Amino acid sequence: MSHLPKTNELEGQKIIISGGGIGGAAGALALALRGADVTLYERAPEFKEVGAGLQIGPHGWRMLESWGLLDQIVAAGFLPEDMQFRDAITRETILTLDFDEEFQKHYGGRYLVIHRSDLLSILVKNAIEAGAKLHNGVLVTDSHTIDNGIEVDIESAVNPGEDKETHIADIFLAYDGIHSVMRKKVVEDEPVASSYVAYRGTSKLADEPEMQGLKSVIGYIGPHVHFIQYPLRGGDLLNQVAVFESKRYLEGREAGNIPEDWGNPEELEQAYGHCDEFIQSRLGTMWRNNWWQMSDREPLTQWKVGRMLLVGDAAHPPLQYLASGAVMAMEDAEAIALFAADAAKAGNLDWDAVLSEVEAERLPRTKRIQTVGRFWGELWHLDGTSRLIRNELFRQADRTGWFRYADWLWGYDASKREYIADPSKGDVPQGLEEWRYALLEQNK
Amino acid sequence: MSHLPKTNELEGQKIIISGGGIGGAAGALALALRGADVTLYERAPEFKEVGAGLQIGPHGWRMLESWGLLDQIVAAGFLPEDMQFRDAITRETILTLDFDEEFQKHYGGRYLVIHRSDLLSILVKNAIEAGAKLHNGVLVTDSHTIDNGIEVDIESAVNPGEDKETHIADIFLAYDGIHSVMRKKVVEDEPVASSYVAYRGTSKLADEPEMQGLKSVIGYIGPHVHFIQYPLRGGDLLNQVAVFESKRYLEGREAGNIPEDWGNPEELEQAYGHCDEFIQSRLGTMWRNNWWQMSDREPLTQWKVGRMLLVGDAAHPPLQYLASGAVMAMEDAEAIALFAADAAKAGNLDWDAVLSEVEAERLPRTKRIQTVGRFWGELWHLDGTSRLIRNELFRQADRTGWFRYADWLWGYDASKREYIADPSKGDVPQGLEEWRYALLEQNK
Repeated sequence: MSHLPKTNELEGQKIIISGGGIGGAAGALALALRGADVTLYERAPEFKEVGAGLQIGPHGWRMLESWGLLDQIVAAGFLPEDMQFRDAITRETILTLDFDEEFQKHYGGRYLVIHRSDLLSILVKNAIEAGAKLHNGVLVTDSHTIDNGIEVDIESAVNPGEDKETHIADIFLAYDGIHSVMRKKVVEDEPVASSYVAYRGTSKLADEPEMQGLKSVIGYIGPHVHFIQYPLRGGDLLNQVAVFESKRYLEGREAGNIPEDWGNPEELEQAYGHCDEFIQSRLGTMWRNNWWQMSDREPLTQWKVGRMLLVGDAAHPPLQYLASGAVMAMEDAEAIALFAADAAKAGNLDWDAVLSEVEAERLPRTKRIQTVGRFWGELWHLDGTSRLIRNELFRQADRTGWFRYADWLWGYDASKREYIADPSKGDVPQGLEEWRYALLEQNK
Repeated sequence: MSHLPKTNELEGQKIIISGGGIGGAAGALALALRGADVTLYERAPEFKEVGAGLQIGPHGWRMLESWGLLDQIVAAGFLPEDMQFRDAITRETILTLDFDEEFQKHYGGRYLVIHRSDLLSILVKNAIEAGAKLHNGVLVTDSHTIDNGIEVDIESAVNPGEDKETHIADIFLAYDGIHSVMRKKVVEDEPVASSYVAYRGTSKLADEPEMQGLKSVIGYIGPHVHFIQYPLRGGDLLNQVAVFESKRYLEGREAGNIPEDWGNPEELEQAYGHCDEFIQSRLGTMWRNNWWQMSDREPLTQWKVGRMLLVGDAAHPPLQYLASGAVMAMEDAEAIALFAADAAKAGNLDWDAVLSEVEAERLPRTKRIQTVGRFWGELWHLDGTSRLIRNELFRQADRTGWFRYADWLWGYDASKREYIADPSKGDVPQGLEEWRYALLEQNK
């Protein structure tokens, strides 16, 4: 017998999802848990995630709890005692976020880190258990809203052009990621490169003498670089991320000729010369065969096209600084399932109205996270006078002083519909009014 | 009968001072109050100060109190209720320093603003009343330490080369300002231009409808500019200072050809375009015939040459940001008088030892003010992300949170000899370790 908290408000509702990453799998789960008939198509031959560690704040924890997944998530992940921001030059700890009882009481949840592939496996497994049908090797090529529904065109991803089919659903959720095919129905845009690049690496924690006893998420932040460390899988794995600003990208952009391999391993070796030797000594453990050029996209003003809704990274890919990309995609999922179930319970399930309501609530929320994420990235990488006052501000926020800066992010609950009540919360927050993220002007 | 707190520990001690600005007059007063035989030479035909308003924190207030001058100073000056830092773009008040009872209790003194010429007149008048001999139109050209004393060469400043005389004193204090002649005995250096320029102006407060009711020191701080307003003379006068970074200076320095008139009125007109319109509207009231290129000098490692001591701006000219240039010169004066009087009371007045003790206490203290003053200037003028976090840090320091940043400055008392006990206090303060004031590299 399933442990899942299954209800039946959406029984008979047919939902198609494109994309089997964390967002799509969460969407399949959340909707199947309300009894909907969910079909998910993923073009890759198997469900997998790139990268390694993923952070889930209490805003995600509470959803995972409501979906009945806490035991599985905690068993697969790691519960850090705190998050420490340290200056990358001096190694001084300038701000500690204690994930203690006061934190848990304040946010009604815990802070968890987990391997991306472990989280995806859990979501996929439980979505299937909840009744969703998940298919690999299938590409969604197009969709057309029809009277009271939507046609979704699929074909084989292995043999393009073959096995073409068209399926009809009540709604279609485009969870197809930052390189979304469906986003083109709303806007013709491209990812916005941040000039920063990430290297990742995992190793057995037991094999790293210097890292014994690590129970924290540690973020070394410094001029033009940062470096993250935390345990994964109950403390068996050490997860590390090295992020730096690529000079070759900046110079190439200036010259109108950006090199394909900006941020390559040679740049990694040079980028941390001003940092504490300990951080430099850790770079040898990073994977060298892959690096990730950090990008987001501009916030949109529309996600809904007929019965199709852009969601997750397809709608609002953020920079990584607020560690909320995956949770935002999960919040989207829960908002759709919740708003639809509420309507069904009230006896007036109108999918056009539900998708509009989701867009009204979620678009400003995610816009805010995208914008503040950009600001937060600049904050981490400050130099000179600015770095020192950032450090001092962080010191002043120690213990619980930082709650005021995190409540909007970690205290969010879609059921409160707070952004529908006040969409201006999604505008650049007060205090950032005069700050402009002028990508092409910065760092000149 | 004099109201002055006169004592006689230094009776029979002959002291010559070069320079009749605020520092030299304070030196003459402090030493004459201890009974010394003080002669001061000022090359200008009268005692006068350039500029207008001057701020005196509680570190200066307590000295003026001990010299018996409070009634005169308060009658001539103005006691602001508070100091308000406001953002120059939004006009938001981001930090208020209340000069209330809690402030007065914490620092044992008040905050006062006064016209520079009024303060100088009071110091000169009281120095004379205390017995010092002050002479105008006399240039000190050189000095030579002799056995147990010092020869000081003077001549006419009106007819150079005439009226040459040599006088012998126990010590010679070179209070001859930022363009000091005597500083060359220690080092061959030049003022360090900050790239900022100041315009000043005073007007009748009653003639300024927008400024009625002003009882504060207001500092608008913004990217590359600041603008100061406060009342003077019991509130009859409005004092304003407009300071901005000169683009022509920066461009000229880059090109190796700095224009003589950098910071001219044309630049003033252009410099505030990004600021609130109210500030722009005030620029019309500034004097246009004079502007001041803001400079300091590098801190020295030595002030004493035989029986000569560099003091005041001759030894440690600061940028203006901590509003402590005049008070530092007064602190020097009080330290010399106090340390000498202490030695005399103990029956072992040895001027070489006293001057060394003064140098040991005062040099690190003033070095700290010079260095932090440079940092403070950068802090005021930040842009973008950095400005926003500066504003947030200021907001967090409101009410009494800022005490911790000001205690070292405003809580100082030379009699505690705290820098003799710990000269490292004069090094770049902890927290600024990684910050370097790289004048020739900044703003590139």
